[in-house]
Amino acid sequence: RNTCWAMERSIRERVPPLLTDLYQFTMAYAYWRAGRHQEPAVFELFFRDNPFGGGFSLFAGLHDCLLFLRSFRFTHEDVEFLRSVLPPVTDPAFFKFLRELDCSAVTLRSVPEGAVVFARVPLMEVSGPLAVVQLLETSLLCLVNYASLVCSNAARFRLAAGPKRKLLEMGLRRAQGPDGGLTASRYTYIGGFDLTSNVQAGFLFGIPVAGTMAHSFVTSFTSLEEVWPQTLVAANGDPDPVDIISLTKGWLSRVCELLEAQPGKIREGELAAFLSYAIAYPQNFLPVIDSYSVGCSGLLNFCAVGLALCELGYQPVGVRLDSGDLCRQSVDVRRGFRLCSEHFSIPAFDSLTIVGTNNIYFCEKSDNSLFKFTVGVGTHLVTCTKQPSLGCVYKLVEVRGNPRMKISEDPEKSTVPGRKAVYRLIDAEGHPFLDLVSLAVESPPEAGVPLSCYPLACDKSSVSVTPAQVTCLRQEAYSKGQVTHPPCSAAETRAKVQSSLQTLHPRHKKLQKPDSYTVALSEQLHNLVTEIRRGSTNNSNFLLAN
Amino acid sequence: RNTCWAMERSIRERVPPLLTDLYQFTMAYAYWRAGRHQEPAVFELFFRDNPFGGGFSLFAGLHDCLLFLRSFRFTHEDVEFLRSVLPPVTDPAFFKFLRELDCSAVTLRSVPEGAVVFARVPLMEVSGPLAVVQLLETSLLCLVNYASLVCSNAARFRLAAGPKRKLLEMGLRRAQGPDGGLTASRYTYIGGFDLTSNVQAGFLFGIPVAGTMAHSFVTSFTSLEEVWPQTLVAANGDPDPVDIISLTKGWLSRVCELLEAQPGKIREGELAAFLSYAIAYPQNFLPVIDSYSVGCSGLLNFCAVGLALCELGYQPVGVRLDSGDLCRQSVDVRRGFRLCSEHFSIPAFDSLTIVGTNNIYFCEKSDNSLFKFTVGVGTHLVTCTKQPSLGCVYKLVEVRGNPRMKISEDPEKSTVPGRKAVYRLIDAEGHPFLDLVSLAVESPPEAGVPLSCYPLACDKSSVSVTPAQVTCLRQEAYSKGQVTHPPCSAAETRAKVQSSLQTLHPRHKKLQKPDSYTVALSEQLHNLVTEIRRGSTNNSNFLLAN
Repeated sequence: RNTCWAMERSIRERVPPLLTDLYQFTMAYAYWRAGRHQEPAVFELFFRDNPFGGGFSLFAGLHDCLLFLRSFRFTHEDVEFLRSVLPPVTDPAFFKFLRELDCSAVTLRSVPEGAVVFARVPLMEVSGPLAVVQLLETSLLCLVNYASLVCSNAARFRLAAGPKRKLLEMGLRRAQGPDGGLTASRYTYIGGFDLTSNVQAGFLFGIPVAGTMAHSFVTSFTSLEEVWPQTLVAANGDPDPVDIISLTKGWLSRVCELLEAQPGKIREGELAAFLSYAIAYPQNFLPVIDSYSVGCSGLLNFCAVGLALCELGYQPVGVRLDSGDLCRQSVDVRRGFRLCSEHFSIPAFDSLTIVGTNNIYFCEKSDNSLFKFTVGVGTHLVTCTKQPSLGCVYKLVEVRGNPRMKISEDPEKSTVPGRKAVYRLIDAEGHPFLDLVSLAVESPPEAGVPLSCYPLACDKSSVSVTPAQVTCLRQEAYSKGQVTHPPCSAAETRAKVQSSLQTLHPRHKKLQKPDSYTVALSEQLHNLVTEIRRGSTNNSNFLLAN
Repeated sequence: RNTCWAMERSIRERVPPLLTDLYQFTMAYAYWRAGRHQEPAVFELFFRDNPFGGGFSLFAGLHDCLLFLRSFRFTHEDVEFLRSVLPPVTDPAFFKFLRELDCSAVTLRSVPEGAVVFARVPLMEVSGPLAVVQLLETSLLCLVNYASLVCSNAARFRLAAGPKRKLLEMGLRRAQGPDGGLTASRYTYIGGFDLTSNVQAGFLFGIPVAGTMAHSFVTSFTSLEEVWPQTLVAANGDPDPVDIISLTKGWLSRVCELLEAQPGKIREGELAAFLSYAIAYPQNFLPVIDSYSVGCSGLLNFCAVGLALCELGYQPVGVRLDSGDLCRQSVDVRRGFRLCSEHFSIPAFDSLTIVGTNNIYFCEKSDNSLFKFTVGVGTHLVTCTKQPSLGCVYKLVEVRGNPRMKISEDPEKSTVPGRKAVYRLIDAEGHPFLDLVSLAVESPPEAGVPLSCYPLACDKSSVSVTPAQVTCLRQEAYSKGQVTHPPCSAAETRAKVQSSLQTLHPRHKKLQKPDSYTVALSEQLHNLVTEIRRGSTNNSNFLLAN
């Protein structure tokens, strides 16, 4: 598949360089006018709180950011539009400057796609000419924010569901725009889902797709006369077609007797729908069984058709429940399967899947344990109901080699100045326990050597820690117009996510009230912050009275 | 601008026909296999609850749906991908059928773009060959769901803000994907916003764009030496450039004295940033003033530069506040402006704008009344924090002229069968008071003639009402491959939204605990529902014991 090509084309259309805030252009102009547009500058991208009240996040969106940087260029049409919206005093030479811009002078250092990350750690460092790196802000934020959020949300569903249960993403219809749906399919897969209902996501990213039928299919049938053909050949290839309608009717009366159901309450249209589907796809029989009544009709119709399929050598897959109390229903359904399996000696009925798809909302591991194998999640997964935005920000930390800092009245909104390095410190058991943010010029921490640092949470006091191992968290990903790390496929990134989540200590993975992970500043960086706050370093001098 | 062309191209790329759930194809195949794919069928699109606990919603997304229908066609590549994911038993002739499909046999009746609508009213009716109208489900839902949600959210912000205050949408960076950002800009404008920060939305939809500077611009400056050029010519065209730095310094000491501020706490970098911006765009001076301290630095620097601009004949625009307690700060800032205006006799300082942009969240009209003129809203507006999904559904209501109904164990999830007409009943004061859903074959209600109907809320009992006027809510929008209603521009739709919201009685527009609007079934439709529930009409007969 031409995935790479399709994605590069798609990024140009999804994220043209005008898909940004107007103020990026007014600022770029003011820099250009003051002759500062080429000054070397460094921005950092981070978020301030782990999402969903959790203890960690996954970083995602890097791949799209790289494609965006590579394709960043203003067309003639773009520039003419800018000419029409910027104030008329704008110097025409500025538009010529825009027309010639690209990202060949930009360098991006980033944590890898799918990395486990924490609040306040600078995830991306974007350096290059001041005006250019400023212009990139909104697009990079837009590409990272939702991708990371929905990937993290998926990882939480995976943690809640345990490693074995199959998880299906099916949120396209409720997503925030078509691209929201596509992004959700991609990054929920990376975050730990197994399947998506979204065919385009299968096409573009190679994600396994799944789905069988909706209620409309069931309610579109009225009677068994609509079933066509009325026969099916056995799985063993015996060329004589079998009258599957009669076969099913026979099974239906036996099932009604076994499950003590009233044959008079069975819906004929539902049976016709199940039969039609089974005849079309005998190896993929997984109907939705709650269009009328699960207990009085859907379950019985499923068992009858399923047993007929078994008799013909096919293995039915299972059922889907989409309304009412899924837990209660799944118990009844599982009981029905077990009775059929035992009574008719059909072991295939022991391994049937129950798919639950009604407003699924995991809380803790213990919940919903009654659903065997597959859970389909839509709205809550893709729109991230609990917190629909991650709140990544992009802050200036250095210009012309000088550290820059925003000192807000709102302490939460202050930034940490200077070009940095980020290290992950790992304990003797192999669990990460602290992310150290230091100045890029400092020497890296060493395994086995104690170091003193300042955790961000408890403002003033320092702690001493000794890492058993140290890893450098960020790598160069884009430089001199080239992507310097070849991107991974969605499946490769997904595997990395799961293995890196495994190293995280369970106390940070609790879905509710996790222990918070420590992010700390090096002593030198801490001192720089203190100096700038005091005004004793050249961030913005106080203007002396004149 | 080539808006129409760009949008049609864009819909093909944003919503290719594979951007749907896999089960649409497995169902289409089962229909095709049973020879039912050409049976005439009718689906309806509606939502079950008004969003945000409100009393109404706005319907949006129609325009994109029409472009989607017009461009709906599978490419060779699409079909080959489907061949690879559908079960291997799928008859090859089915793929030939898909390759030739289009929407020329589909008819869409819809409420107009931007209409005020209510829960459970069928907003769109999609009729055509069963397999085709089934295939359209996910895409139509995806296009309507978020557009209507974010448009309704914007209308609530507008109601809270009152008709005069300027509202700026600036949520792109926090949106759920790039397309979520673009859709938000477009539909929040239609819902009542005035401006967007999103340049691409300006380009594609002609929405007015706005924005000036971020904190990074301010913190990138260190000293007045970075200001270049250091002069500005007066607005009257006098060719002698004025030394605006000296001029501003003079104003700064006067302002410090007037506002009893300490000159020693003024940040030089901030002043340099303001000056650089003012020199670049003297007519558009609206800096962000909270990079260090509003009261100790930002306000004073703004007043100094602003007064210098006034002296040169320019009109400064205002300031932006982006952190801390915006209400308190805006009072202080307004007081500073008034003192300058009075003391220096500069009336321009009375009409300065204060823009507030920190996590804005309107509740009721009385709130936030201190912000004069402009409020910028991002995250809460575009991601619809309070309820990030509308939950539109698409349900089968008729096949081959026979009404279809899903009878769920969950009464909320049951559907209303049959092909319908929808009328809005208006009272003597011109306020809509009831939406009547009747069967399409019934004669329409008449002004002045009493009628009996069954409100959906109070299940069983009927009410008698007499409309002063009756309007038909839906119109044909697409038929025989053609869009039958030419689309309106975003600005035209926006104007219609505001005027139709005006006719809605205030009791339904309350943001909290509104009076609920009545949606009722006609007597004939009510009877049909009752019959089908009883099983006495041919929806799905009960299968008699055999």
